[in-house]
Amino acid sequence: MDDTRIWTAAIAVIGDEILSGRTQDRNIAQIALWLNLQGIRLVEVRVVADDRAAIAEAVTTLAGRNDYLFTTGGIGPTHDDITVDAIAAAFGLDVVVHPRARAILEDYYATRGGVNEGRLRMARVPAGAELIENRVSGAPGIRLNNIFILAGVPHIAGQMIEALSGTLEGGKPLLSAVLGSWAPESEIAGLLLATEKAHEGCQIGSYPFFREGRVGANFVIRSTEQDRLDRCVADLATALAQAGYETTPGGI
Amino acid sequence: MDDTRIWTAAIAVIGDEILSGRTQDRNIAQIALWLNLQGIRLVEVRVVADDRAAIAEAVTTLAGRNDYLFTTGGIGPTHDDITVDAIAAAFGLDVVVHPRARAILEDYYATRGGVNEGRLRMARVPAGAELIENRVSGAPGIRLNNIFILAGVPHIAGQMIEALSGTLEGGKPLLSAVLGSWAPESEIAGLLLATEKAHEGCQIGSYPFFREGRVGANFVIRSTEQDRLDRCVADLATALAQAGYETTPGGI
Repeated sequence: MDDTRIWTAAIAVIGDEILSGRTQDRNIAQIALWLNLQGIRLVEVRVVADDRAAIAEAVTTLAGRNDYLFTTGGIGPTHDDITVDAIAAAFGLDVVVHPRARAILEDYYATRGGVNEGRLRMARVPAGAELIENRVSGAPGIRLNNIFILAGVPHIAGQMIEALSGTLEGGKPLLSAVLGSWAPESEIAGLLLATEKAHEGCQIGSYPFFREGRVGANFVIRSTEQDRLDRCVADLATALAQAGYETTPGGI
Repeated sequence: MDDTRIWTAAIAVIGDEILSGRTQDRNIAQIALWLNLQGIRLVEVRVVADDRAAIAEAVTTLAGRNDYLFTTGGIGPTHDDITVDAIAAAFGLDVVVHPRARAILEDYYATRGGVNEGRLRMARVPAGAELIENRVSGAPGIRLNNIFILAGVPHIAGQMIEALSGTLEGGKPLLSAVLGSWAPESEIAGLLLATEKAHEGCQIGSYPFFREGRVGANFVIRSTEQDRLDRCVADLATALAQAGYETTPGGI
């Protein structure tokens, strides 16, 4: 494993329901947290409509410049599920019925009314693609080279990424720690910057909040090295204490 | 008002905290719902890191091909807040201290310890930009041509868009209605497609769920015309009833 290589991923969330505001996306955060554990850094996300041209633009750009691309949504049985067709078209591939996907669906629906035209749509994949198993709903996800085509329903997408755990090459997992404080971030901005600069390989993010009539902030420290992370956290706590602010490990 | 013109908007969510999975974004859905009421259609979203090049790419692309662009995040007082600098640089503009923003901050912090270097960062805007008032935290949002630079904290971003209500030119508001049913979407996919095709100017989205051991779906019908929407909803309910599925107006 090359310790200095940074492995990157992108997500393309496909779905009018997110853009209309009707559905609150839950897949970005879920996939992001899982990627951290795989040693892969999520660097960009796009949300696009159920529209072939929009999907093609996002998928070709994001898969082209990242190690991995995950798409969510648009692989169900209905007419607004066009992800497979749009991705296949974007790469000049035919859409074929995957024999194993068909067998999985026939088995799954054997006691649920049988496979019909809509359900068979879920066995269609871009030519040359592999399957990602899914224990929840029968219909599998799809892997096409570095593109992972996942369901939009969060608990099904979650099962699909769990099935991929440990199978994708990555770097060191990104570690993080949190310090909370009832400090107005606008008062300790300089202190944060100085602490980050003094700790190579560490990043400090500041996330203010307003609760119980008071302002405070949680500071998230990130590094791939546990010892560097620990030193940065300790120094930040000391600096904040010297500025008159107690800190709470784990955040407030 | 041109009834046939579709007004489009994009969102650029700026923030490592979203990409790390630590923070669940709430601004996309909030802004999307508000845009519907303004008669503006959200057509694309990008989530980018606190990185100048990434912000510049997203902002120039999205503002260039949409009527409006909303950015969230990265306008606070700390070192990781680089949105203003990145946007100004992307358009070749200087960053200047806006006199009214400075006055607002001096007033707001008069009883809170005064303005310091970090707080004054929040008065910096790309040259030529206007302010978007914010009653919550003092620090204003920023309007630069068709770009609206909002806070990342959802209740502050929410105040900022409320302040913009009715001020942006748009088309007819997009109307929607929901029918819920304990129908497996894979059994009625053909019915949905046929109903949508029979109703010009209407879109039907299908959102399956699994609850209480049973599968069902909510069908969201959208149109800018109330009468078209009503007819499509009525016909869909009839078609589902004929297929043996009762429907619940408003969704399940």
